[in-house]
Amino acid sequence: MSELTLYSYWRSSASYRVRIVLNLKGLDYVQMPINILGGATAKSLLNFKQINPTELVPVLIDGPLVLNQSLSIMQYLDETYRQVPLLPNDVGEKYRLLSMAQDITCDIHPLNNLRVLRYLDSNLRVSQDEKGAWYHHWIQVGFAALESRLKETAGKYSFGDAVTMLDACLVPQVYNAERFDVDLTPYPIIQRIQQALRSEPAFIKALPENQPDARLV
Amino acid sequence: MSELTLYSYWRSSASYRVRIVLNLKGLDYVQMPINILGGATAKSLLNFKQINPTELVPVLIDGPLVLNQSLSIMQYLDETYRQVPLLPNDVGEKYRLLSMAQDITCDIHPLNNLRVLRYLDSNLRVSQDEKGAWYHHWIQVGFAALESRLKETAGKYSFGDAVTMLDACLVPQVYNAERFDVDLTPYPIIQRIQQALRSEPAFIKALPENQPDARLV
Repeated sequence: MSELTLYSYWRSSASYRVRIVLNLKGLDYVQMPINILGGATAKSLLNFKQINPTELVPVLIDGPLVLNQSLSIMQYLDETYRQVPLLPNDVGEKYRLLSMAQDITCDIHPLNNLRVLRYLDSNLRVSQDEKGAWYHHWIQVGFAALESRLKETAGKYSFGDAVTMLDACLVPQVYNAERFDVDLTPYPIIQRIQQALRSEPAFIKALPENQPDARLV
Repeated sequence: MSELTLYSYWRSSASYRVRIVLNLKGLDYVQMPINILGGATAKSLLNFKQINPTELVPVLIDGPLVLNQSLSIMQYLDETYRQVPLLPNDVGEKYRLLSMAQDITCDIHPLNNLRVLRYLDSNLRVSQDEKGAWYHHWIQVGFAALESRLKETAGKYSFGDAVTMLDACLVPQVYNAERFDVDLTPYPIIQRIQQALRSEPAFIKALPENQPDARLV
């Protein structure tokens, strides 16, 4: 087995998703932290552009394969390393789960990504309150839809009674919501699942504050 | 074979992607237009919320299965209806292609979606110029990265010499870019692929203006 390398940033929730999947599968990997905030490490960011022209983390290296986009990376890992399957076998159920994952990864998270918040600041000169309202809005809209869908799919976790790729997408999004003080009371199922996963070793190990590049303030 | 139903909107580029895939595979489907602009058909939008709580198109119905998110729908169709495969067999290549698709579907399109432009208008009260600059910015950033990646992957089309799911994602995004007068000169490969696909029947049939709910002005 070739060595896996993950280019990531501790607070990137897309990186956080992939770390959870790597941990659930018990895969060893080398972490290459990319400081997406720029500044002192702008040079490493420049080098990183050679690896991923979008300059976004995460990127997984597996032998000759260079893969960006967390959802592709997670699906690739699940199909390649078959221990602890994280998607249903049935094709319809599999894509129903992945649709819910994409409700998070395509419809909530990209709107609240660092580069977008920076654009709101620098180009649109919005106030801090307006930026906060933007951030809360997309989580609230997304979580309300997700909560109603979870009524049909959730068991012990978000899609039945086994941990799946959907849980690996949900937990980092809840982490972001809590970090920005979004009230989670309207989403009791999301809260319950988050509680259930909080003590799982694979999720603890993947926490942003437990990464080598974490800068706690 | 059960009848396929697609809830869609003529100008939704996520719907446009799925129409291309359905056409490439020669699948018949019934189209249920959802006017996402609201207004006169706000009632049908309310009913649609029962089908998809995110209120976003497209949604595919295939027998008992209800599936949202264009990427999940396209992958589901490709795995279920095996004629005209639209993804490579090799797992690494498949996810390399899907990563590039997600560079469009997760990192460009969600930022320029109707609901986001409306938020910029109503909540942040940006000017028309600022809204246009926002729209152009995310396409330009995304297309620049995509163009550099296409240098490695493009043949006759975006990923080799056969039409793939990546082409089904690229063409609707170029359509949007042209609609909003984004200069495509800096992206010669993207332009060339678009030209090559313009005359393909599956792509012509999927064009927004060729849909039953098209409202040409």
